[in-house]
Amino acid sequence: MTASDVLDRLRALGDDLVTTDPTELATYGRDWTKVYTPAPLALARPRTTEEVAAVLRACSEAGVAVVPSGGRTGLAGGAVAARGEVVLSLERMRRMDPVDVLGGTVRVQAGAITAAVHAHCEPHGLTWPVDFASKGSSQVGGNISTNAGGVKVIRYGLTRQWVLGLQVVLMDGTVLEVGGALEKDNTGVDLRQLFIGSEGILGVITEATLKLAPLPRKLDVMVFAVEGLPGVLRLFREVRQSGLTLAAYEFFTQRCLDRLLRHRDLRTPFDRPADHYVLIEVEDTEPDAVEAWVSGIFDRGLAIDGVLAQGPRQAAELWALREGISESLSATGQPHKNDIALPVAALEAFCAELDTVLATRYPGWELCLFGHIGDGNLHVNIMKPDDLDKAEFLRLTKQADHDLFDLVRRHAGSISAEHGIGLLKRDFLGYRRSPDELRLMAALKRAFDPQGLLNPGKVLPASP
Amino acid sequence: MTASDVLDRLRALGDDLVTTDPTELATYGRDWTKVYTPAPLALARPRTTEEVAAVLRACSEAGVAVVPSGGRTGLAGGAVAARGEVVLSLERMRRMDPVDVLGGTVRVQAGAITAAVHAHCEPHGLTWPVDFASKGSSQVGGNISTNAGGVKVIRYGLTRQWVLGLQVVLMDGTVLEVGGALEKDNTGVDLRQLFIGSEGILGVITEATLKLAPLPRKLDVMVFAVEGLPGVLRLFREVRQSGLTLAAYEFFTQRCLDRLLRHRDLRTPFDRPADHYVLIEVEDTEPDAVEAWVSGIFDRGLAIDGVLAQGPRQAAELWALREGISESLSATGQPHKNDIALPVAALEAFCAELDTVLATRYPGWELCLFGHIGDGNLHVNIMKPDDLDKAEFLRLTKQADHDLFDLVRRHAGSISAEHGIGLLKRDFLGYRRSPDELRLMAALKRAFDPQGLLNPGKVLPASP
Repeated sequence: MTASDVLDRLRALGDDLVTTDPTELATYGRDWTKVYTPAPLALARPRTTEEVAAVLRACSEAGVAVVPSGGRTGLAGGAVAARGEVVLSLERMRRMDPVDVLGGTVRVQAGAITAAVHAHCEPHGLTWPVDFASKGSSQVGGNISTNAGGVKVIRYGLTRQWVLGLQVVLMDGTVLEVGGALEKDNTGVDLRQLFIGSEGILGVITEATLKLAPLPRKLDVMVFAVEGLPGVLRLFREVRQSGLTLAAYEFFTQRCLDRLLRHRDLRTPFDRPADHYVLIEVEDTEPDAVEAWVSGIFDRGLAIDGVLAQGPRQAAELWALREGISESLSATGQPHKNDIALPVAALEAFCAELDTVLATRYPGWELCLFGHIGDGNLHVNIMKPDDLDKAEFLRLTKQADHDLFDLVRRHAGSISAEHGIGLLKRDFLGYRRSPDELRLMAALKRAFDPQGLLNPGKVLPASP
Repeated sequence: MTASDVLDRLRALGDDLVTTDPTELATYGRDWTKVYTPAPLALARPRTTEEVAAVLRACSEAGVAVVPSGGRTGLAGGAVAARGEVVLSLERMRRMDPVDVLGGTVRVQAGAITAAVHAHCEPHGLTWPVDFASKGSSQVGGNISTNAGGVKVIRYGLTRQWVLGLQVVLMDGTVLEVGGALEKDNTGVDLRQLFIGSEGILGVITEATLKLAPLPRKLDVMVFAVEGLPGVLRLFREVRQSGLTLAAYEFFTQRCLDRLLRHRDLRTPFDRPADHYVLIEVEDTEPDAVEAWVSGIFDRGLAIDGVLAQGPRQAAELWALREGISESLSATGQPHKNDIALPVAALEAFCAELDTVLATRYPGWELCLFGHIGDGNLHVNIMKPDDLDKAEFLRLTKQADHDLFDLVRRHAGSISAEHGIGLLKRDFLGYRRSPDELRLMAALKRAFDPQGLLNPGKVLPASP
């Protein structure tokens, strides 16, 4: 069957279901990685689960690969279509059922925008606690397929914890309903878990029953300047033992702040620079208790300086110091990004060794470190030195990645905390997963997609 | 290879590793179901992961089936050995590493007793929030293999949420380390999830890195008498919207209370019987706020009567009203037990229809209903009528199970909320899982255990 036969078959499935418009293909063939050249065969935008199944069946029969596509805000190339695949966009499937307030659940289609789900639930005092900077574009199906993390994981856990049921279409067109609006359902192997976080290589999520959490009534945000990573961790231990309900524990370094202030019209609340900063958010705590706790921090020398937001506007300003970093690094230079996780207990030794490796092997490179340190999650950004050629920088960062991941492995960490594997980290997966694990993953892939047509080459090498 | 050859091989692995003592075999061949006659070939009690792997390799080579065995407190026959299997008990593997207070984790061997883990973590102000009546006997490995539920699920979720890493031995002796002391690790298919809740049919859990939660500082327990199931659910809606942190929301009926009071020397705190009772536990709430909330409940007619525990002793007395029920039913009669889950929104319609089915098809049968209703989880107990022969009761309850599960299916519920499938529910699994799901589960089983020797016949039919 030729490419044009396949297109004819897909076109026959419905008016306006498929397009080959080059602009659309260029847009829908990439995610936020921007390092692969998009080259899909076509873009399919079904409106129903039945249409998704029909597209998959047609592609199965034609032996054409399919790339499931959400808001394409991923950073690992998991939604890239660069080898003549059909991009299957879920964006037209954004129905949201009424919120079940008593059960604390809502069923939505996979294309529902994350922020739209929040807005849908908010009038009921509920939220789907999956929250990060790209929530205005990302879709529920993508959130689930990547087991999305973000700034609230320390309070709520990963996306996995907030998914009760899934409707999934397999590559052969089989429609599965796994789980449902149930908190408890111990009936054999939990297939639902296989689709969460596996980046669309086992099935296409079309609908989900989400578990909701009560909205916090009150949030307090504060930023502290502390001395080095030991200061960050000392304060973390303190807040963990305080009995306060921690909603976020983020950190960033002075280098990140410098670049943020170069890029954006923001003010630092601090009189003089420190080397490390911590952003803390606590939930539903009495005003007196928060102020007393903050005073105690200073009394005991746990912070050099600090500010407690007086109201939502200042809280947003403090959050901007942390959330504006990623964009500011790209705007002021060329960052090479990694997203790693370490056991919290290993962070201090790891960071010290990382400094040594960089100083020894890559002298002069600027390291911009920030992230969800309460979860052991570091965003490691190496900035291209101005005097280094771009191609040479790419070559060297590839080598540096091996050094970094080797260090991560020695500290029992993960090479991808929340961004996933996709195309970008696939060839490094052996730094985290053993040959036995890789063999089992490949066996699972074969069980769900024997022809290897669903998101091929992502996570695992494409089958021959 | 004969049975005696296999025993010789196992004996050669280590002194005191294996026994065929008939008393031991009778004990270790059964769980709390007590309906199957134990008939294992031998009992192996390894002390290390290497010994577990050696036992599994030997049994694989000999084609002998293995039943992994924890505290054997299961209610579905998942740990029963009735067909010449080797029982692999983890009870000698109960090492607990020091608690990582900063990271909030602890690594333990699978044989560690649940309550011992609690005691190990408590001095650090932390707990592993997996909590139920059998915690003094149950083991961590069994808790994880069955994705155990219990009385705190509404607050903390199921066991699945509290497992960061697993060491697992496959039937061929392969030792896997999946996950670790990491909150975040998005590196491909999360194999760890496959072993959680799959009742030992895919691998034997030997060690686990557990996620810990801060101990609550204060718990308030109260019991209310309400009118019927609508009263139970009205109060649930109220407490959900109150902003109180709900640690438990349990219910039981007057029939359960009657049998409890017949069996145990307990007093009811109520002057007159009601038909339904609710036990509520709330966490870390100011005393004034709790009392004001309770007053509001009465002011608005949401409860007929109620009592708020004044101190830990009375709290324990109130909990005994709920936790003593299961034992009391068995002590005062012969219950036929089921453990089902419904979407909370479907509970009222389901229970009304269940009453009708029982009244129409099984007139005179006594239904004792209690459970974790905040999770949609009902323990459905049908008591054998005194004038009915035991064998006839068993025959009729088998038929009644089909009626019950048909009703459960029509309301999108689960035939096993927290007890699992094991042997007891295996032939009913089709009421919850579709043929496609069963086919995929069988494919997973083959990928992990091609010979079908690990806990055969549990969850899925034994392979031919």
